[in-house]
Amino acid sequence: MKALEEKILREGAVLPGQVLKVGSFLNQQVDVEFLLEMGKEIARLFADAHVTKILTIESSGIAIAFAAAVAMHIPFVFAKKNKSANVSGEVLQTKIHSYTHGTDYTAVIGKEFLSENDRVLLVDDFLANGAALEGLVEIVKKAGAVCAGAAVAIEKGFQRGGDALRKKGIRVESLAIVEEMGENSLTFRR
Amino acid sequence: MKALEEKILREGAVLPGQVLKVGSFLNQQVDVEFLLEMGKEIARLFADAHVTKILTIESSGIAIAFAAAVAMHIPFVFAKKNKSANVSGEVLQTKIHSYTHGTDYTAVIGKEFLSENDRVLLVDDFLANGAALEGLVEIVKKAGAVCAGAAVAIEKGFQRGGDALRKKGIRVESLAIVEEMGENSLTFRR
Repeated sequence: MKALEEKILREGAVLPGQVLKVGSFLNQQVDVEFLLEMGKEIARLFADAHVTKILTIESSGIAIAFAAAVAMHIPFVFAKKNKSANVSGEVLQTKIHSYTHGTDYTAVIGKEFLSENDRVLLVDDFLANGAALEGLVEIVKKAGAVCAGAAVAIEKGFQRGGDALRKKGIRVESLAIVEEMGENSLTFRR
Repeated sequence: MKALEEKILREGAVLPGQVLKVGSFLNQQVDVEFLLEMGKEIARLFADAHVTKILTIESSGIAIAFAAAVAMHIPFVFAKKNKSANVSGEVLQTKIHSYTHGTDYTAVIGKEFLSENDRVLLVDDFLANGAALEGLVEIVKKAGAVCAGAAVAIEKGFQRGGDALRKKGIRVESLAIVEEMGENSLTFRR
């Protein structure tokens, strides 16, 4: 998505540790009109996938999942990290390793929000090592639902997550794929 | 908001510990079309408030903040709980007590996302004891910005938070105020 690449070049910043900071529009401050356009692009890419529900994980996936859900006229569900007071009753859960924080956490959703009749599109802001999306794939499997694919705003193409998911047969569409980034450079995969 | 009260009566459930479960549409699964209607109502209520930015806190405030931001044609910012790798540089932060979890946490945003020229509307899904909103008020003050008010989806009118904020002169608008709730009853303040 050309407009996203341009926005990343204009507003993004590369921090030490291969962190791409896009807090001005995607995951701290949110430019909702721009995200609605990203949502439309996701809807276009998965127009033939008969998606019934979007699944993301708190918190920075919520905004882009909201935008995609608006464009696709379906609800979204966000997995919570660790069980909270608001998730009661039967749950679907899986353990996910956070490379950012060096710890494991449990992603959990209420069992009633996914059924075996669902075709689920996973949505997230970033795809790097793929741990979060792999966890969501597990939750979809536990629900007996079908994973129709994964849509992410920004994929770090130089990390293994995206290709590992594709090798498993999951359709992954990234609105922008960063091929390489450094202090003074940032190039996209075309 | 009549439609919200009806939806709470239809889909909500009261759990032990005065927990109102509305995960089917507000804070686990999200009915985006319904939330966009709630966003329009928030925009209508604060049409005269010259709001320039919406501030919420992760994660269950994000969806309703997104919806309000769409209707008001402004960006929203969400405070993170504890500093993460994605919040770098100078920050605005404050300590908040979580009554749900019995612990304190730090709410933080990048300093660049609020300025003294901003008129900020706080948005959240629930208002109970008011600790989260009081923390956001602190962040707005630290930014030198003006707090134009607070809009929440559901206020627990039997807890002290809403009235405490109003006594401080903050305009609080709740789309639904639960007056009383029990195992088999739920009434709204009119």
